[in-house]
This record gives sequence, structure tokens and C-alpha cells, in this order.
Amino acid sequence: MHRRQLFAMAPALALTATAPATASASPADDAADVAALLAEYQAAWAASDAARMFRIATDDIHWVNVVGMHWQGKADVEEAHRVYLETLFRGVPMALEAVESVVPIGADVLAVVARWSVGAYTTPSGFEAPASIDRMSLILKRTPEGLRMAHVANIEVNARAQASNPIRPAPDAA
Amino acid sequence: MHRRQLFAMAPALALTATAPATASASPADDAADVAALLAEYQAAWAASDAARMFRIATDDIHWVNVVGMHWQGKADVEEAHRVYLETLFRGVPMALEAVESVVPIGADVLAVVARWSVGAYTTPSGFEAPASIDRMSLILKRTPEGLRMAHVANIEVNARAQASNPIRPAPDAA
Repeated sequence: MHRRQLFAMAPALALTATAPATASASPADDAADVAALLAEYQAAWAASDAARMFRIATDDIHWVNVVGMHWQGKADVEEAHRVYLETLFRGVPMALEAVESVVPIGADVLAVVARWSVGAYTTPSGFEAPASIDRMSLILKRTPEGLRMAHVANIEVNARAQASNPIRPAPDAA
Repeated sequence: MHRRQLFAMAPALALTATAPATASASPADDAADVAALLAEYQAAWAASDAARMFRIATDDIHWVNVVGMHWQGKADVEEAHRVYLETLFRGVPMALEAVESVVPIGADVLAVVARWSVGAYTTPSGFEAPASIDRMSLILKRTPEGLRMAHVANIEVNARAQASNPIRPAPDAA
């Protein structure tokens, strides 16, 4: 191949390489894509189906759960969820209260904060966890197949502490 | 400008656009850059200096703290920390226990999990929070000026729950 031909091809290659990252860059498209991903996550939860849940994840997803367990890579993240979805979370209702924010970080990534209400459940140690509100940070990667969960950190909202928030809550916030 | 000239320029433009994102893409460089950022964060904490702490943040940083407060944008994130650093966290020791993971997400972003030990403190409502271990997810954006905090979610580790972890902890994990 001639050098001239290589250069002539370069613009097309560059566009191909960046297309997935910018394919859904409008805020409206991002919001719709995020809503679809969260609906799929919720449906997988309701079905106690960890395999389904992590089809929308990257292979190297990391997950830090509400009690600070840190799972690294899809195999471990999926297995941990399989165990919990088939035991303590089976039949526990989970509803999306709000998507509080969708913020692009660079071209490839969206940072989302979603607020979930989760029903009461009993932990393996016998602790009866009451119904809670959780604020979940989802770091989503744009891929040619759509958004994928790349990092999740899930924090239980301490209702009593909110009165001491130095910042007035946003209208949508709990 | 001739159409041919436009095409000839395209490859150079594409390289320029991606250069900051790939400037420090080696794992060793990333680890060093992350260590430097965490050291600066810790120094700002020790100095009770919120302005210093958020010079290493993006303008649209979001932060979800250990009790689930969600602060949006540098002005609010910095003000919340100013209030807490000057009151309940003043003089409270915080030490880095481990950088558990550094995972690139696309070209622009690193997802880091760092484990901190934090001394006891008293909340505004009078609750005496005991010393804790926190797992902090830091989503860092590569910029021409270096890594910047773009999203942080900080989770207190529930020590009792760790015995029920379905996944054997990594050697480095608490």
C-alpha cells in the first residue's frame, strides 16, 4: 500500500475510533440511555438474575457495596450478586426514586447518581436491615454496544445525618 | 481552503485531540500520578484546607459522602468540605491504608479504590462516630494539568459484614 493511500485512509480510521464515544453525546440521548440501563438493572434484580445484570457491565467492572465490600472484575462481581440475589435479596423490592445526575467525564464515560428505595431484608449474620434509601454512583462506559457499568459504589443514605448537610439539598434530592 | 488540504490536516487534528488522554497511559505512570493525587488530598485534609483539596478537582465534580449526601459541582463540594474540615474533622487523623485498584475506563478516566483509616469524631447531631475504615471510589479525569477528581463516592466499611463476603477478599483487602 502506498504511503499516500495510508494517509488518505487516516481520517476515516480516526472517525471510526471515536464514533462510539460520541455516538450518543447529546444530554437527551444520554438520559434515555441511562434510563434504559437502570431499567435493565432493576429488571435483573427483580428476576434475581445476576447473569442478566452483568451483561450490561464491562469485563473489568469494580463494585463497592453498601457495607464496603470491594469486588474486582466481572466474574467476582457477578458471583457475589448471584449469591445475594438468590438469598437475602430474593423478593426484596427495589424501586428507582430518581436519577439525580448524569455528568460526562471526557468522551467515553458518564458518571450517574441514582437513588433507589430498597425493602427490608435479613443479612446472613441475622441482622434485620430495615428498608433503606441508597445513593448509587454508576460510572458508565460508552461502547459500540451501548452503555456498560464500569464502576459502581453504593451508599446507604443516613436519614438523620441529612439535617446536618451544609449544602441545601437540590430540589430533587431526598 | 481546498478540500484536499482539509483532509490532509485531519490526522494531525485527531492526534492533538487525543494527546492529553493518552499522555500518561502506562500503569506505572498512572500509579505514580494516583499516589501523588492521594498525597495531596491527604495533605489538604491534614491542613483543613478545602480550597487546596479541590484544586485537584474538575469544575463539575460530584461527591457522595459516607452518609449519602450528594454534592454537585465544585462550589458546593468545596463549601461542604470547608464546613466539615473546619469543625468536626479538624485534627482528626486520616491515613492511607492501600490503593486497592487503578483501572482505566476508556482513554480519559481512571477508577481508583483507596482505603483510608479515619479517626473518631463527633457529628453535629452529637453522635460520636468511632474510628473507621472507608473505601473511597475516586473517578479521575486525565487533563493536560494532571489527574483531577471528577467523582468521589466514600463508603464506610462495616467490619462485621465482611465475614459474609461471598468472595474471598483480595490479599490486600481489609
